[in-house]
Amino acid sequence: MHVLIIGAGGMIGAKLAARIAGDGALAGRALTRLDLVDIAAPPVPAGAGALAQSQAADLSDDGVAAALVARRPDVIFHLAAVVSGEAEADFEKGYRVNLDATRALFEAIRHAHLADGYRPRLVFTSSLAVYGAPLPDVIPDDHIRAPRTSYGVQKAIAELLIDDYTRRGFMDGIGLRLPTIVIRPGRPNAAASGFFSGILREPLAGQRSTLPVPETTRHWLASPRAAVGFLIHAAGLDGVAVGPRRTLTMPGVACSVGDQIAALERAAGPQAVALIDHAPDPAIAAIIDNWPRAFDPAAARALGFTAETTVDELIAVYRADDAPRG
Amino acid sequence: MHVLIIGAGGMIGAKLAARIAGDGALAGRALTRLDLVDIAAPPVPAGAGALAQSQAADLSDDGVAAALVARRPDVIFHLAAVVSGEAEADFEKGYRVNLDATRALFEAIRHAHLADGYRPRLVFTSSLAVYGAPLPDVIPDDHIRAPRTSYGVQKAIAELLIDDYTRRGFMDGIGLRLPTIVIRPGRPNAAASGFFSGILREPLAGQRSTLPVPETTRHWLASPRAAVGFLIHAAGLDGVAVGPRRTLTMPGVACSVGDQIAALERAAGPQAVALIDHAPDPAIAAIIDNWPRAFDPAAARALGFTAETTVDELIAVYRADDAPRG
Repeated sequence: MHVLIIGAGGMIGAKLAARIAGDGALAGRALTRLDLVDIAAPPVPAGAGALAQSQAADLSDDGVAAALVARRPDVIFHLAAVVSGEAEADFEKGYRVNLDATRALFEAIRHAHLADGYRPRLVFTSSLAVYGAPLPDVIPDDHIRAPRTSYGVQKAIAELLIDDYTRRGFMDGIGLRLPTIVIRPGRPNAAASGFFSGILREPLAGQRSTLPVPETTRHWLASPRAAVGFLIHAAGLDGVAVGPRRTLTMPGVACSVGDQIAALERAAGPQAVALIDHAPDPAIAAIIDNWPRAFDPAAARALGFTAETTVDELIAVYRADDAPRG
Repeated sequence: MHVLIIGAGGMIGAKLAARIAGDGALAGRALTRLDLVDIAAPPVPAGAGALAQSQAADLSDDGVAAALVARRPDVIFHLAAVVSGEAEADFEKGYRVNLDATRALFEAIRHAHLADGYRPRLVFTSSLAVYGAPLPDVIPDDHIRAPRTSYGVQKAIAELLIDDYTRRGFMDGIGLRLPTIVIRPGRPNAAASGFFSGILREPLAGQRSTLPVPETTRHWLASPRAAVGFLIHAAGLDGVAVGPRRTLTMPGVACSVGDQIAALERAAGPQAVALIDHAPDPAIAAIIDNWPRAFDPAAARALGFTAETTVDELIAVYRADDAPRG
């Protein structure tokens, strides 16, 4: 099993690489090669040995997609993207990286298919940002993808292309709309969604954290471990069972910020909760108001995708996998 | 009012040009120039006089979009497309014309906007092909766009781009998902949907016609006159009232083939109905089975779009506008 991870330097990409290297296998087949690609050469996971190759490359540069596909990986994970805020700030860069580079990859796969029948499993990380207000409280799988950001538009277009390239037989693609990942390890960041992790991660480490939205704010969360699990599960799925709509909303924990705080208290006591500073930020609240609150991910559940079901589990996973020791 | 029609050589484009030339105005402003563009130089409508300019150009050729936009038309109708069957047969041509050329037009508009604040009304013809099975009997405006053809994917991507380019302020775009146009004037064609017109048009002219599907088959129809009316209405709409989802499903006649035949009998008697040959074609039936049957076009209705409500009206419009005389 030859695996290519594009975007292997990101938080999820690095965890995915480590998991595959650790398993020594994917989708029931022994790992024979693990190509890790990102803008900067991504880390090679411990234990990967000579199977792993790390490479710095920009998928939006001419010829890069064709060169990556020339090695005919059996499974391609395409995780590389300009994030939401940057795609909004830099219109051209967002379209170049999130749309044109993705299409270049799909076109390279199509040309390889036309040359020799190559047809890889392609696993793509999409986003809840394909959904835009107005939204129902619980979003079904057949709700319109009507994004309110350029990032969401770029992801929605990639989803449409995956359906078409798969239907035409050029690839066997599966897209995953990941929940917001909580608890993200590391330091606070400037993302509008950063507080969903921060209000748990910082107090668990005895540090203060700022909550910019009301406790009634609801959202859809899963752990980094669950995200890696989705990707691994997608790599081994029977494509026929997926059907023609190839991107699936992943399961997650539907919860309010108040639910998160209650779980924090159960895990670390009232002194941890006291570290949260309530500082309403109307700008962030306005952004979050346009976000989806909960899903009925029936198609993904029927295909065996699973995630945590409580915030307590999200905290336990963080403590086991990522929390600083000592 | 300077108007540009891209795809002015098609059946709807030519009728639209004739209507605007005849009105001598659009959206309440006097016509000052009418640019008509298609792969072959489109006809100049009678009475347009010196205001109309006909030009042969391929929007997918380098520089064509920029040249068309350089004249800063106030309203751009983008009707040019490779049709469904051809986009399915020629994957590369479909993406080049329906996606890349459309994006080139939008990019030319964006660059003009960045240069001098240009922000035209862009009216785009989309398609019911953005919807794919499984579908509810009546499709609401917030149903997922999940096409089952490359053509549908290309149209759905254009819809997403219109939302984004409009939200960012580069254009003021509106897309229209046209019903199947019945009765199309002219001769029978090879389109899978051709019989919806043929079973009315041919018997009305005393000629035989073949029906390849059961009389229970349901579909969503509007006349060529209604389609032109949608385009004219879209040109003058208040963009703010449209909201963030800029492509609208147009109203139409929800009817069965049996309803069509009953209306034919009312219009032309049982001898006309006797000219229909029932010749079930499982291949065509399978295609039509994946098509939408009816819509609840609430957003378009609220914005004042109107169409016929009965097949009898579709026949009357055909007799008034297009049926051969004598």
